[in-house]
Amino acid sequence: MSLVRWVQEFLANWPAQEDGRHRPGAADTVVVAVSGGPDSLALLHVLARQGIHPADKLVVAHLDHGLRPSATAEATFVAKTAAAWGVACVVEREDVVALARDQGLSLEEAGRQARYAFLARVAAQRGAAAVATGHHADDQAETVLMHFLRGSSLAGLRGMLPVGPLPGAPHLTLFRPFLEAPREEILAYCQEHDLAPVEDASNMDTTFFRNRLRHELLPALAGYNPQIRERLQHLAAVAAGDVELLEALLRQAWTKVLREEGADWLRLDRARWLALPLALRRSTLRHAVWRLRPALRDVGFVTVEQARQMAETGQVGGQSTLPAGLALVVGYDDLTLSAMAGAAPLPDLPQLPDEKPQPLAVPGRVALVGGWQLAATFLERVELAEIQANQDPWIAFVDVPDPAGLVIRPRRPGERFRPLGMGGQSARVVEVMINRKIRAGLRPLWPVVANDQHLIWLVGHHIDERGRVTEGSRQVVKLHVERVT
Amino acid sequence: MSLVRWVQEFLANWPAQEDGRHRPGAADTVVVAVSGGPDSLALLHVLARQGIHPADKLVVAHLDHGLRPSATAEATFVAKTAAAWGVACVVEREDVVALARDQGLSLEEAGRQARYAFLARVAAQRGAAAVATGHHADDQAETVLMHFLRGSSLAGLRGMLPVGPLPGAPHLTLFRPFLEAPREEILAYCQEHDLAPVEDASNMDTTFFRNRLRHELLPALAGYNPQIRERLQHLAAVAAGDVELLEALLRQAWTKVLREEGADWLRLDRARWLALPLALRRSTLRHAVWRLRPALRDVGFVTVEQARQMAETGQVGGQSTLPAGLALVVGYDDLTLSAMAGAAPLPDLPQLPDEKPQPLAVPGRVALVGGWQLAATFLERVELAEIQANQDPWIAFVDVPDPAGLVIRPRRPGERFRPLGMGGQSARVVEVMINRKIRAGLRPLWPVVANDQHLIWLVGHHIDERGRVTEGSRQVVKLHVERVT
Repeated sequence: MSLVRWVQEFLANWPAQEDGRHRPGAADTVVVAVSGGPDSLALLHVLARQGIHPADKLVVAHLDHGLRPSATAEATFVAKTAAAWGVACVVEREDVVALARDQGLSLEEAGRQARYAFLARVAAQRGAAAVATGHHADDQAETVLMHFLRGSSLAGLRGMLPVGPLPGAPHLTLFRPFLEAPREEILAYCQEHDLAPVEDASNMDTTFFRNRLRHELLPALAGYNPQIRERLQHLAAVAAGDVELLEALLRQAWTKVLREEGADWLRLDRARWLALPLALRRSTLRHAVWRLRPALRDVGFVTVEQARQMAETGQVGGQSTLPAGLALVVGYDDLTLSAMAGAAPLPDLPQLPDEKPQPLAVPGRVALVGGWQLAATFLERVELAEIQANQDPWIAFVDVPDPAGLVIRPRRPGERFRPLGMGGQSARVVEVMINRKIRAGLRPLWPVVANDQHLIWLVGHHIDERGRVTEGSRQVVKLHVERVT
Repeated sequence: MSLVRWVQEFLANWPAQEDGRHRPGAADTVVVAVSGGPDSLALLHVLARQGIHPADKLVVAHLDHGLRPSATAEATFVAKTAAAWGVACVVEREDVVALARDQGLSLEEAGRQARYAFLARVAAQRGAAAVATGHHADDQAETVLMHFLRGSSLAGLRGMLPVGPLPGAPHLTLFRPFLEAPREEILAYCQEHDLAPVEDASNMDTTFFRNRLRHELLPALAGYNPQIRERLQHLAAVAAGDVELLEALLRQAWTKVLREEGADWLRLDRARWLALPLALRRSTLRHAVWRLRPALRDVGFVTVEQARQMAETGQVGGQSTLPAGLALVVGYDDLTLSAMAGAAPLPDLPQLPDEKPQPLAVPGRVALVGGWQLAATFLERVELAEIQANQDPWIAFVDVPDPAGLVIRPRRPGERFRPLGMGGQSARVVEVMINRKIRAGLRPLWPVVANDQHLIWLVGHHIDERGRVTEGSRQVVKLHVERVT
């Protein structure tokens, strides 16, 4: 198939986009990213000189990365070529080395960000809604292989999308008309049309890693499957379809599980989240991180799995660390993702209104912050088996010979108790709180129930051995913390 | 983590199975596949000697593949070890070379099938519902890599499932307690417990290809990602979750699109199929092939894409070849998958009841087979633009000066006509039928409309130039083939 046909087919089969990105028509301005290398030069030639798009509706964008002495000559070559073909051209220079240093990025990543930002600027200046790049099928195979080696989800196996959002400027459309065309076709086209491309200096993607993939790993893999490039391209196509479907499901699930969202935090409904299938429990957590940190390019598998584990089985108040300073905290019936330090609201957990102890009558109720209450009632019949079977951390049954002296209050400095089930050993309350992963910010007003001698219940976690209900217990009090509103 | 802990964790986290495969309890008999190599020997030791499962509820199954002289000694070793540990043991011998030859299989595939069939037999004889194998995390990494190199869908990237159906006997459960344990752990365990495994002669998976993966490719990939084995294991875990969800969607979609199913054919509702997202259009076609040919292990990407293309955009009667002697045929409003030759019913397309020409009155109707009818009416007003805009292949507008002589009949031997749009050239009807991919079995009774001089309409495909409606047409007949019931 000739290169022109590849582009025609690409445009004819312009992939249906859920977000309705339309195929640029003859009246639309299109920015073409041209480094001056064979891929982008051939793309510009096909578009402008083969009647695919009106030349006066194209704008060449060339970014000089300031990395090599030859870069200025390349910029001049691109500008001249564009002029000869009747295409407008914008050349800019960016000190990518300085950018990488200032932003703490790799050269590769800094170059990538600079290029996309430049393309978005040119598109905005020229009123273009779409940007075309010369990525081809061999680039695609390498990209899929790279994600296979280093990625952490199936999404990467799609490689580059034929049509999608421009990174950093999602309202603009990035499209890659050569994405299914082999590199050979492009080189043949250049030869046939006497194009004299320069070496692709600004193509920062052609780094050491990618070069090794191309020149060492792909030939080695061909020893296991001679069609390895096709296999990678097919995998990209399969993954693109599957991931599109999974993302549609994610969007549905997200509206179900998202309860509240703030500037730097969000809260999910835990019960609804738990009811999701495994794949969506994972992808909603990934998505939550991405909503809070859109610039983050990937979240590692282990990180997601740890957060999922915590969200599924963790104690209330438990916390799991996420990338970019975020954490997930397990709430009573929700999951909060927020910056670990900062103005994010605390998760919705029982908190005392202040440090003052409050008497707890039995039967009786004490109001806590935000609609939470503690209710105390006498148990009429003591069924030991039932009491031992209690799994609800917000309910405690305690043996209280003298209920008159009960209070609810915060822990006292240095206070100790004997958590039931720890062999009668005494432990500092604060250490138990830390072990149980109650967040630091929640500890000072975390409620405990006590009598005048000792702690009886560290709410949500342990009762004291001295409050344990036995066969000889005469008077059992049921303590129940619940959110009433 | 010790090997015993890996197994305990595996059993504690027994993956929730949609099909409800339960974890074998102490009262259940479990078959353990033991080659005598380190993996399976350690598995037997952990299960029988570490209190994981009662030894008298285990059955060792050892298949001698008859490939090497040492095989008998290995069988004896396994039988002796089982006896020493108080575990029943079944040894069988199978001539895998002969099996491969007789069935036209590779040695690897023949060995695999023989092993699973043997395990199913032993399980049935001993009343066991579950079979355990010693596959470990390094096997898993290699399996994922193998599918990455050669597979054709995401499903292969799951590698082996921790718990799943035994191939060929899906009512039996195959589980792999070591699947997340690294091989190192197993070797260390063997040393620690003075186990003296034999070389794994019956492990046919350890073929040349797999050995090259293990000893050459994986070390090479570690140069690109030192954590390549973990990466592959994580990919398997991610893919397992995603594929589980996609398969649930496939099951839903399948009940929507399946219209009828016979012994060796099935028919899908085309409109409903077309309304599915891309990923499900692909997976339903894959699934359809699998339902007709359950033994087929994979359907290539290109095959699926060609069938999908035909099903999406193909002419009625068009056919696409599928593996194992199957084909997909596009019907009027359905898609039929069936054996190309054989007793499969023909797709539901218009067919004459017999070869006898029938007069066609205007206005009038002629009944075809299976609820199809041809209706002929005069057009009251001739709107040329409307006629030219007609896209429905089952409607034709023809200029018929003398409607009295119209008939509907099969093509005649050697008959020719002048298909409209082919530059006035005459063509053999049968060749046009072949070009339009009308299946051979449908051609003899495919209806054509004709007058006493020439063919007027090859139903569903072309009208004759001589019936073309022009601005000068005085009398236009609308011919409409439709399925009425």
